[in-house]
Amino acid sequence: MKDELNRQSLVANLKVVCLAGGVGGAKLADGLAHIVPPENLTIIVNTGDDFEHLGLTICPDLDTVMYTLAGVANTETGWGRAGESWRAVDEAARLGGPDWFRLGDLDLATHLVRTQMLRDGESLTAVTRHLTHHFNIQPALLPMSDQPAPTMIETDDGTLPFQTWFVKERWQPPVKQVVLPDDARATPAVMKALENADLVIIAPSNPFVSIEPILNVYPIRAMLMDLPQAVVAVTPIIGGQAVKGPAAKMMQERGLSVTAGAVAAYYGDLIDGFVYDQQDEGALDGLDAAGLCVDTWMRDQSDRIRLAQDALAFAAELGSR
Amino acid sequence: MKDELNRQSLVANLKVVCLAGGVGGAKLADGLAHIVPPENLTIIVNTGDDFEHLGLTICPDLDTVMYTLAGVANTETGWGRAGESWRAVDEAARLGGPDWFRLGDLDLATHLVRTQMLRDGESLTAVTRHLTHHFNIQPALLPMSDQPAPTMIETDDGTLPFQTWFVKERWQPPVKQVVLPDDARATPAVMKALENADLVIIAPSNPFVSIEPILNVYPIRAMLMDLPQAVVAVTPIIGGQAVKGPAAKMMQERGLSVTAGAVAAYYGDLIDGFVYDQQDEGALDGLDAAGLCVDTWMRDQSDRIRLAQDALAFAAELGSR
Repeated sequence: MKDELNRQSLVANLKVVCLAGGVGGAKLADGLAHIVPPENLTIIVNTGDDFEHLGLTICPDLDTVMYTLAGVANTETGWGRAGESWRAVDEAARLGGPDWFRLGDLDLATHLVRTQMLRDGESLTAVTRHLTHHFNIQPALLPMSDQPAPTMIETDDGTLPFQTWFVKERWQPPVKQVVLPDDARATPAVMKALENADLVIIAPSNPFVSIEPILNVYPIRAMLMDLPQAVVAVTPIIGGQAVKGPAAKMMQERGLSVTAGAVAAYYGDLIDGFVYDQQDEGALDGLDAAGLCVDTWMRDQSDRIRLAQDALAFAAELGSR
Repeated sequence: MKDELNRQSLVANLKVVCLAGGVGGAKLADGLAHIVPPENLTIIVNTGDDFEHLGLTICPDLDTVMYTLAGVANTETGWGRAGESWRAVDEAARLGGPDWFRLGDLDLATHLVRTQMLRDGESLTAVTRHLTHHFNIQPALLPMSDQPAPTMIETDDGTLPFQTWFVKERWQPPVKQVVLPDDARATPAVMKALENADLVIIAPSNPFVSIEPILNVYPIRAMLMDLPQAVVAVTPIIGGQAVKGPAAKMMQERGLSVTAGAVAAYYGDLIDGFVYDQQDEGALDGLDAAGLCVDTWMRDQSDRIRLAQDALAFAAELGSR
């Protein structure tokens, strides 16, 4: 109990930045949001898989994090909203529209308001602030960039926009290369958050298509490398498997072993500590990073909070580099 | 009976063009669609009240005509679809989006598919052909122009986009002037239909904000003036009142008497015949146009068909100029 209080007081005043993709990132961000005072928490979200669909600007990772923090996410599918209906997209499909990306009626509201605001000249950062305000979300949710920074997936059948590969092709075509834009620039809000960060948590998102697109945005990787404070990543691989999505398959295709250690090695110098699962004891043997071996599987909200606490305390203890 | 057969055979092979705005135009177009072979019927629709809303391209008159011909229109409201739900726009309003223009979930499907196709580079004519095909509508439904040709309403409080005045302000601000674009151009499909027309029916739509925007599109007015065949208008004013909408109010504001005769006089040389209601006997006294005095109120579908038959037979009998 005393230990717990000490750990909480240790992190209460720290400014925390979390880099997040979709589902795994959203869950850890939710855990963090329950223990970090909102003014001290910034979540920087991948926008590499944003795209235009049915004339609307869709930001899948931003929305997954937003819906999760708001408590309105569909926890069964891992995307979209709970209690959803499908009147508009079912009718659009009947009218010859595309049906491979499902936009529920409630979910559509987000895209409609976002698209109108973007067309009115607002930045994605401002739009996201507006939406999170109306979802009663208090921590800062920031797109990594205000300009489109599309992630492309090179396959044997050509180079596909991310969502075409991920959703339409159900991430089955082997990935020859993840192609990231060379002109993506971070927003002022992102840079300010990183400048002021006391610690950075890299969420258990896909390293190649969720986290790497964020690191690729100039100057985020350089700022993280130069940061005097600890950067800690949480493993997306547990017991040789990805909790969700294509991370394990992509590691195999890259010739990597599908292990937590391989993820830690992939992040390399960027991170100071790595949180991995108790199933994977010894995962960091031979690696330079400090390790924390705990239960990293987030089945419910108490798991999210516990993992967030563990990762925060670990990063706080690592302290300055 | 023999008379009826003669009248039907008289019009069976005639190529009919109908100029239409919203509700009144949709009803007469529906009547025409029941008696004119589909390959002989073209409906040219006002797009002056088209606008962008929630990032989507909305074409209110095209959609009212389309939904009416498809039998899916909401006949109570005069706009939108029957059996509609409002999940997306209600949620968009909760998220701080505009709530003055109601887009139902089924209706949204039309705007989503249209907006995607327009962004993909298709013309509004092609998009409308696609949508009407999927609604199993056989006559040709043509936007008057493929370029935006916005109708603006000059009021004491400034010049408003049409839908702002019509829906948001419930057409209450007095109209100082209807401002139409001076660079609107007809589509090739519209010009071909007018070239081949054996008769033209001007639907009982608002003369100033539904029909005039069509006539204003170059070279539609000139083509109608030069057409050797009959042009017949159907009155939107019955017994000194507009069946629906601001026509009567606008006539008062212009200092016109609110009568069928004043509408006929407004169209002037453009028309060869005018169909007016039996309530308004003697409406054309002192005017040059040929008149047909019948029951013009369209309460149900049999009324629509009867009025369409009357107008067609009248125009066919007027024949060439």
